[in-house]
Amino acid sequence: MPTVCLEDIQSAARRISSACVRTPVLALRARGTCPALLIKAESLQPIGAFKLRGATNAIAQLTAEQRAAGVVTHSSGNHAQAIASAAAAAGIRAEVVMPIGSPAIKVEATERWGATVTLVPAETRAAACQDIADRTGAHIIPPFDDARVIAGQGTVGLEILEQVPDVESVLVPVGGGGLISGIAVAIKALRPDVRVVAVEPELAGDLAEGFARKRISRWSVEQTSRTIAEGVRTQQVGELNWEIIRALVDDAVTVSEEQIRSAVKLIFTEARIVAEPSGAVSAAGYFAHAERLGLGRTVAVVSGGNVDSASFAQLIR
Amino acid sequence: MPTVCLEDIQSAARRISSACVRTPVLALRARGTCPALLIKAESLQPIGAFKLRGATNAIAQLTAEQRAAGVVTHSSGNHAQAIASAAAAAGIRAEVVMPIGSPAIKVEATERWGATVTLVPAETRAAACQDIADRTGAHIIPPFDDARVIAGQGTVGLEILEQVPDVESVLVPVGGGGLISGIAVAIKALRPDVRVVAVEPELAGDLAEGFARKRISRWSVEQTSRTIAEGVRTQQVGELNWEIIRALVDDAVTVSEEQIRSAVKLIFTEARIVAEPSGAVSAAGYFAHAERLGLGRTVAVVSGGNVDSASFAQLIR
Repeated sequence: MPTVCLEDIQSAARRISSACVRTPVLALRARGTCPALLIKAESLQPIGAFKLRGATNAIAQLTAEQRAAGVVTHSSGNHAQAIASAAAAAGIRAEVVMPIGSPAIKVEATERWGATVTLVPAETRAAACQDIADRTGAHIIPPFDDARVIAGQGTVGLEILEQVPDVESVLVPVGGGGLISGIAVAIKALRPDVRVVAVEPELAGDLAEGFARKRISRWSVEQTSRTIAEGVRTQQVGELNWEIIRALVDDAVTVSEEQIRSAVKLIFTEARIVAEPSGAVSAAGYFAHAERLGLGRTVAVVSGGNVDSASFAQLIR
Repeated sequence: MPTVCLEDIQSAARRISSACVRTPVLALRARGTCPALLIKAESLQPIGAFKLRGATNAIAQLTAEQRAAGVVTHSSGNHAQAIASAAAAAGIRAEVVMPIGSPAIKVEATERWGATVTLVPAETRAAACQDIADRTGAHIIPPFDDARVIAGQGTVGLEILEQVPDVESVLVPVGGGGLISGIAVAIKALRPDVRVVAVEPELAGDLAEGFARKRISRWSVEQTSRTIAEGVRTQQVGELNWEIIRALVDDAVTVSEEQIRSAVKLIFTEARIVAEPSGAVSAAGYFAHAERLGLGRTVAVVSGGNVDSASFAQLIR
């Protein structure tokens, strides 16, 4: 029994249409790739990431009582900004638990939206979030393991099918699995022939491992914190996300740190947009695996662009 | 008697619709600016600049004889890429004269589209272009002083009015004046109440000077080559462009090199896109002059994003 269905995603699309940008699909013409890889530039959302879709969809469905109590969440950054921004737009109080070591740019942006930020060790973030909810009565909006969030992220899939009717494969970066589970529901309901492929850094490849073993794999903070792609350092995918992924996702692949860096640079040069390393993971997956997997006409979702200037300057050199 | 009218721009919009991206309007939330400045991200065109619009519109109108003879143009870079790309798409031979000192990234990109590039001293580029036309019979498509090019660039104005119906002011960077003259025709025909303002670097402020004196000013290559905004180092605006600008443009302002650098960095941080210095001139104009001019709800056209990685890394540090 699917927990999120196409109709949920179509409703989400209506709820988020004024707050979220219908991001463009841009061509990435790497030397030797023909036809060009297409990228869905979710980095162009107002908070710089697709996360605004799920957060907006969840907040739009709160009851009056929940709105009065405020919301709380935990996130390494992009979901934090999304909740802070969507809550501010709705006039709701927001608290956000972020792991120590989150990029300063993401912490500051969350605070600029008026949210209260609490920094805790990465492995205790979910517990700290629950603690605040228990103490203050705030309503929890989890970063990925939530039907409202999944439905919101799934609107990316609807847009890809409308913008690129002849798409054959969609590549999606995976941290907790919110984005890929939403996209997979939308795409497989409307176009079951289109392949949906998960891409992770090798150094945070818990889903690829779990996908092969057919059960959730959990990686430690020590393991996943090795990748530069800090947005996908999640220890495992969510339960709801896993149910959808194992039913609907076609494949799960990984890329090296070097391939991620090259993809950031190529996206800078060819599409002239700023991708954070996590955002470039999907495009890296195309260059590493397109031929072997026979992907055909492909859209890679560039999930976010929140990277500080010093890091970005180093990445593109 | 206007040389370009609204109908020319509406026809151009139909001719270019499949080759050019309808670029998104993004919000730039600088600290302390409220409401946000909106930017029209022409850097997201396939060749990284609005120039694809004019080039595509011009090439679409060539006769069979002209197509067979091929085309030739002169440009510091973005018009060169636009002509090379549009000619390649149409199966037409293209030659491009570029000034010595053009960024390597722009020269290489032009050659990648299959065009033949000739490098000459900046002050002889128009003559060198004419020379090739005389010798080979190639048809000249000038970079800005051309009704077909102006009409193509004017499609940016149509899109701004559709995307931001409550716009009050539009800021446009000016080199030869192709972009602003097209935009001014479109906007003043449909919404004469919307202000159209030219922005230049102080170090290449020939139009601002001419606007004050009510006649074209010409600056030397030595003067205009001082600005980092190499895309707007043109010595003067074109004749057709000037006729339109003096009739329809409301104001002409300038910005410092430091203001241009800050705008590039702010566009990186807040909109997560890559603007070349010339492309950021308009946004710089907003922060320098919005209050004094009472601009209200403003769209700044970010005209291009072709900048090499070393230069960009330095700009955002």
